[in-house]
Amino acid sequence: MRTLHVELGERSYPIYIGAGILNTLGELSAKHGLTRKSPHLIVTDDQVAPHYLAQVEEQLKSEGYTVISHIVPSGESSKSLQVYEEVMTTAINGKLDRSSAVFALGGGVVGDLAGFVAATYMRGVTFVQIPTTILAHDSSVGGKVAVNHPLAKNMIGAFHQPVMVVYDVNTLMSLPPREVSSGLAEMVKHGLILDRDFAYWCRENGSKLLSLEPEALIYGLERGCAIKADVVSQDEREGGLRAILNLGHTIGHAIEAVGGYGRFLHGEAIAIGMAGSARLAEKLGRPADLHNETVSMLKAVNLPVTLPDDVSVDRIMDAMQHDKKFAEGQMVFIVPESIGSVSIVKDVPVEAVRSVVEQLKGEG
Amino acid sequence: MRTLHVELGERSYPIYIGAGILNTLGELSAKHGLTRKSPHLIVTDDQVAPHYLAQVEEQLKSEGYTVISHIVPSGESSKSLQVYEEVMTTAINGKLDRSSAVFALGGGVVGDLAGFVAATYMRGVTFVQIPTTILAHDSSVGGKVAVNHPLAKNMIGAFHQPVMVVYDVNTLMSLPPREVSSGLAEMVKHGLILDRDFAYWCRENGSKLLSLEPEALIYGLERGCAIKADVVSQDEREGGLRAILNLGHTIGHAIEAVGGYGRFLHGEAIAIGMAGSARLAEKLGRPADLHNETVSMLKAVNLPVTLPDDVSVDRIMDAMQHDKKFAEGQMVFIVPESIGSVSIVKDVPVEAVRSVVEQLKGEG
Ligand SMILES: NC(=O)c1ccc[n+]([C@@H]2O[C@H](COP(=O)([O-])OP(=O)(O)OC[C@H]3O[C@@H](n4cnc5c(N)ncnc54)[C@H](O)[C@@H]3O)[C@@H](O)[C@H]2O)c1
Ligand SMILES: NC(=O)c1ccc[n+]([C@@H]2O[C@H](COP(=O)([O-])OP(=O)(O)OC[C@H]3O[C@@H](n4cnc5c(N)ncnc54)[C@H](O)[C@@H]3O)[C@@H](O)[C@H]2O)c1
Ligand SMILES: [Zn+2]
Ligand SMILES: [Zn+2]
Repeated sequence: MRTLHVELGERSYPIYIGAGILNTLGELSAKHGLTRKSPHLIVTDDQVAPHYLAQVEEQLKSEGYTVISHIVPSGESSKSLQVYEEVMTTAINGKLDRSSAVFALGGGVVGDLAGFVAATYMRGVTFVQIPTTILAHDSSVGGKVAVNHPLAKNMIGAFHQPVMVVYDVNTLMSLPPREVSSGLAEMVKHGLILDRDFAYWCRENGSKLLSLEPEALIYGLERGCAIKADVVSQDEREGGLRAILNLGHTIGHAIEAVGGYGRFLHGEAIAIGMAGSARLAEKLGRPADLHNETVSMLKAVNLPVTLPDDVSVDRIMDAMQHDKKFAEGQMVFIVPESIGSVSIVKDVPVEAVRSVVEQLKGEG
Repeated sequence: MRTLHVELGERSYPIYIGAGILNTLGELSAKHGLTRKSPHLIVTDDQVAPHYLAQVEEQLKSEGYTVISHIVPSGESSKSLQVYEEVMTTAINGKLDRSSAVFALGGGVVGDLAGFVAATYMRGVTFVQIPTTILAHDSSVGGKVAVNHPLAKNMIGAFHQPVMVVYDVNTLMSLPPREVSSGLAEMVKHGLILDRDFAYWCRENGSKLLSLEPEALIYGLERGCAIKADVVSQDEREGGLRAILNLGHTIGHAIEAVGGYGRFLHGEAIAIGMAGSARLAEKLGRPADLHNETVSMLKAVNLPVTLPDDVSVDRIMDAMQHDKKFAEGQMVFIVPESIGSVSIVKDVPVEAVRSVVEQLKGEG
């Protein structure tokens, strides 16, 4: 078992990563001081529950814990205020109190939803993350928790750090291949923004990662988490530096929105977005191999790097106007400087962005 | 204008108290660094809006701020997830961003609701309180914000400190007399828990307070806020000491619940609860004049100190079981030691509490 420490002063916490470590969940919970006097709540979804819920419940019960569970439908639609209220109802009926913990067993959706419940149930209780997707190596670091508003994603949320993250890579074995690739997009992103060697490592080990080879997976997740943790430690509440984590996300979010959430997975959309950012970088005078290199890294883990023909450029541009502010024809963008380094550029001409989006459709 | 500082490290903030100071709101907002680049949101209710909303909007606009307003129905029912979502919709449609502020113009209901919006809109934005009730001298100190769940009050919330509180006592002139007395219950409570002289001052100045004589009001509110701020500074997240602020609230909450929220105002219910706590104290061997003294203080500001005949003791006892945990026939209670001092007693026999509730009905 590997342990990575996320340094956040009194809110610091460890991420445990390993194969089969779900079998130590009860022990780890005791080590982290979870009380046996209050009930705890496991939140999971209906795709994850059949695989791992019984094991998690068993682990906690065998250590003397009282647990109740709440299973939400799989998918982004569970990140709603309505499902949030239903989980709250379960917590109240289950008599959770201020000493209780909420466990998120699942991917980013369950993590964000259960995390927001933990942040706000009785004004905040203990939160434990048990990620079961590769993408969740991203979402389980940084304490951002949220639900969606019908008008916009992640608008309602909080910063609420877990007390520990228990990342058992064995749980990833049941993940559908598209979800594997989607999660690897954030891993590659972590290389692209801050760690050139890691970005190239991801390319070289693309097939091992895709086949969930444990050693590669553990290294990749640990390094991915470590890079994100490093950024978050320097900027917990997203005042500045943390913005670099949004590489590919401005275009990516627009693609998700225009695709109607569901057509593109998050990682697929930001992969296309990162390819776009690299093109944009070249347009703005950065090295001319950025796009080729970025694209090769994304392709190595089976990610798309172009927009399908039927996606409208106008609608993508419109969606971006909702996402970010265009101040007098200019946009803020995270722009690669080289592989492993990015900068925040505040005056990117909207016209340059439009031409990049057009190119994303053309290339093939 | 008087200024009281709530000391909470980097979350410290001032409470400005005075007559007519709403006329300096624009200036104060500028002083506290509110940006003119982003829109701000005023949340208020339909009883408060006709009196003060135009003035508040005008103040902010005249300083160059862009403001939008959201008016909720007056009353506890607006502290719901549904109204919360509606306010969020207004914020999103109004294009509030991370640099925006939410202003709460109203009593504790608006403060708690708007505060929870501020705590969670885009994971937290600036919060300004403009209390317009006497009770809000309590709710505007301490950063507790919340909405209700259909199954229980204040279950969904956060700790989110305002950047400033602007307390214009002129706004209290339109307050219905029952609301005046209700708010004074918390003022008397602040004396009872920590400041003997202030408790007696409240009794002596009861009629001045009831008639909203500005000098008495400003002194009383400032002293009330200061006592609460003192407690909160020592225990921001309610780990221990802060519990003493719940004097009278265990019985009080049960009375509110059994009355069906609306029959008793919060301050009325906790006044009866404080009378009960004093009786309980005597039963547990504390000085025998506690009940008489407490009752005289509450009566001086027109508050009830007994339960109407038709209220069922059984139902009160039941409601308390929901509110607090009875561990093996014992309850946690805040018990007066003398006027101006209380202690947290963890093993109060349930039978003693029942007999107090019975007495509260009998006395008259
Ligand atoms: N909080 C953050 O910092 C942060 C960062 C990135 C993304 N996110 C959020 O994360 C969400 C996306 O996360 P995600 O991609 O993990 O989505 P997800 O949680 O919806 O999981 C993807 C799919 O895989 C299924 N699944 C999960 N684990 C499985 C397993 N082990 N075996 C079989 N099936 C499994 C799920 O049921 C779901 O259908 C988005 O809502 C996004 O906003 C949050
Ligand atoms: N956050 C905290 O620490 C804390 C502490 C105590 C109470 N509370 C909460 O506060 C709420 C009670 O607060 P409240 O008593 O101020 O209730 P409130 O906000 O409902 O106000 C009481 C009534 O007076 C009206 N009103 C308010 N200001 C007025 C004015 N200036 N002129 C005319 N009418 C006016 C309101 O419309 C309402 O009808 C409860 O929800 C309680 O849970 C919170
Ligand atoms: Zn992402
Ligand atoms: Zn109160």
